[in-house]
Amino acid sequence: MSPFTGSATRTPDWRHLRLAVDEGVATVTLARPDKLNALTFGAYADLRDLLAELSRDKSVRALVLGGEGRGFCSGGDVDEIIGATLAMDTSQLLDFNRMTGQVVRAIRECPFPVIVAVHGVAAGAGAVLALAADFRVADPSARFSFLFTRVGLSGGDMGAAYLLPRVVGLGHATRLLMLGEPVRAPEAERIGLISELTEEGRAAEAAQALAHRLAEGPALAYAQTKALLTSELDMPLAAAIELDASTQALLMNGEDYAEFHAAFTEKRPPKWQGR
Amino acid sequence: MSPFTGSATRTPDWRHLRLAVDEGVATVTLARPDKLNALTFGAYADLRDLLAELSRDKSVRALVLGGEGRGFCSGGDVDEIIGATLAMDTSQLLDFNRMTGQVVRAIRECPFPVIVAVHGVAAGAGAVLALAADFRVADPSARFSFLFTRVGLSGGDMGAAYLLPRVVGLGHATRLLMLGEPVRAPEAERIGLISELTEEGRAAEAAQALAHRLAEGPALAYAQTKALLTSELDMPLAAAIELDASTQALLMNGEDYAEFHAAFTEKRPPKWQGR
Amino acid sequence: MSPFTGSATRTPDWRHLRLAVDEGVATVTLARPDKLNALTFGAYADLRDLLAELSRDKSVRALVLGGEGRGFCSGGDVDEIIGATLAMDTSQLLDFNRMTGQVVRAIRECPFPVIVAVHGVAAGAGAVLALAADFRVADPSARFSFLFTRVGLSGGDMGAAYLLPRVVGLGHATRLLMLGEPVRAPEAERIGLISELTEEGRAAEAAQALAHRLAEGPALAYAQTKALLTSELDMPLAAAIELDASTQALLMNGEDYAEFHAAFTEKRPPKWQGR
Repeated sequence: MSPFTGSATRTPDWRHLRLAVDEGVATVTLARPDKLNALTFGAYADLRDLLAELSRDKSVRALVLGGEGRGFCSGGDVDEIIGATLAMDTSQLLDFNRMTGQVVRAIRECPFPVIVAVHGVAAGAGAVLALAADFRVADPSARFSFLFTRVGLSGGDMGAAYLLPRVVGLGHATRLLMLGEPVRAPEAERIGLISELTEEGRAAEAAQALAHRLAEGPALAYAQTKALLTSELDMPLAAAIELDASTQALLMNGEDYAEFHAAFTEKRPPKWQGR
Repeated sequence: MSPFTGSATRTPDWRHLRLAVDEGVATVTLARPDKLNALTFGAYADLRDLLAELSRDKSVRALVLGGEGRGFCSGGDVDEIIGATLAMDTSQLLDFNRMTGQVVRAIRECPFPVIVAVHGVAAGAGAVLALAADFRVADPSARFSFLFTRVGLSGGDMGAAYLLPRVVGLGHATRLLMLGEPVRAPEAERIGLISELTEEGRAAEAAQALAHRLAEGPALAYAQTKALLTSELDMPLAAAIELDASTQALLMNGEDYAEFHAAFTEKRPPKWQGR
Repeated sequence: MSPFTGSATRTPDWRHLRLAVDEGVATVTLARPDKLNALTFGAYADLRDLLAELSRDKSVRALVLGGEGRGFCSGGDVDEIIGATLAMDTSQLLDFNRMTGQVVRAIRECPFPVIVAVHGVAAGAGAVLALAADFRVADPSARFSFLFTRVGLSGGDMGAAYLLPRVVGLGHATRLLMLGEPVRAPEAERIGLISELTEEGRAAEAAQALAHRLAEGPALAYAQTKALLTSELDMPLAAAIELDASTQALLMNGEDYAEFHAAFTEKRPPKWQGR
């Protein structure tokens, strides 16, 4: 538990997703398999709030996000979200779209790596959740569809027009966001949208293995690596180099760096503390 | 016609390029086939002015740019441009180079997708026109040459040093802009410089098919997707997510989003209005 | 010699690396083959100071950086650097990390192309030196390892979290910087980390050939191309296009552009002056 804990309590029960924590790995499962894990207002809100809680809580060192059933996530529920938003006023529409964006910011800014396990469909908001993650572990059934224009909306949803060009380049990103066509696993791997391609049906398992490996590693080094990757997309070179210098100076004062040197000298594996 | 039309008239006759408009698709053809469609001062000026006119006129919903004859465009004409610029003073040189840059800005900022059909050579300014487009539809004869250094100029011409690293990455971009060597279709596809590779001789046809498909779609959604892709290259993540949220809130008040929901409910294809 | 030379003298003897200059090509060799060219404090300082001296001296028009022996560079020396930094105070740590960052800035900002010849290992700081170069010429034995997290430090070292996403995209960059796993030549080529893949044992030779070709070319055009590629990563589109326009106007007043036109007219190869 962080020393910077105030009056806020932990949420005792996440009603719109499933959470398990094991050995520093939080596993979050979208669990509406009969609806291909379509997202509801409650699911977005829970993702936002859960990531905020876990970011304060120092026990979680990696997070896996996956979906139950035939696919990862079919995106916003047509009935519960598109139907409902048609009845909203401008202020409510803005609140809704800011909430979905906050989920993406929380994924990019939380102090631990986020690994998305993708099998089957990752569509609409589901594709953007995957895009926002640090690692996309996918099996050959994975297909990513940024299908926002197909419902009459902008392809730039939840940061997609910011993130996708930085992951696959502006040419591919334009095609994917404008046309909303599915990108299947071989193309997704070729253009850099997949971090690790597994055998059929093994994405969840491989995502867990990666998460546990990261959770056992130097957590503060990973947290800072992630923070710099996120921040330096928005910084000029000289400022990025200054940030790197001060970050390394900080970590060179830390326990894990000394532990590496001791372990190296003693020819044994390091025991990482995450400090 | 836009309600925001003032006193300016439409240009009745484009002398330095060929224009046809059909079902919301503007087709612009560089038509100096005996010179491999080398660009003249007049052609640059016409491209700049035409894109400005079409951007005000709401009837155009997609634009195809192609070249007549053996190739797409061999770039600035050696006689008419290089020769002439040697006699210019500094102020005139700046005016000329700002004009070519304005063509690229107009391509990136016009409110409809721009599709370049490339066969054969796309060299110098011709390569940058293709680079600036939203879609590059090319056949196997296509070869892109950013040959500015070969005439003693900077590889960063008309935004190429900004755009190319964002399309193919900094490593490839450095090689292409420094050395000015041709990139043939297979490599261009591999590094993300081609949006759609067609069979030999089919680039123009495929570009038309894509343009007509886009022109029949939700035009406002496409326009905003393009605007966000262009803008968010220059924005930090948090601001991009805020822009996405307000854009989606805006489009959720629009007719096409309601039409999608109605069509989905009635199990029929949507009739897009572009509003 | 530049007219803007003050009182500073040239360093007569580089003790921590080997320097040879031939026909405008500076060849810098990391020469501690028994230590896989591990970098010492002195080597970093020499790289920083040498690049600054060569940037003032107009005789160098391309630089090749390579390593003697079995590999390019294994990164910071575990004994001499990691051990020593453990005894430093915060101010000294910041000084050290700023120095390594200054080497990267010097590579990105020097007015001539930098070509790294990679064979065997390019690890840690060695991988970042390669990443910062304009061209990475590598043979099939090359393997790049950004192994900072493996010693408990941030993957964002010396600008790596800024540069790597801009070279290979955010997805690959996250994987490489977080996990620190080796990227072998085939993958490095596939993701855009290699500029030119040579036959086994030919990286140094190919790097020299490229450097001599560049040194014989229009040096000012190359210098400005490099400067724009570096600067425009940090500029918005409109500003980049304005910078391109003023740069081209400047170079159109230069001798090499006129020489190109004369040579073209006379059907002979241009004699580049680099002005």
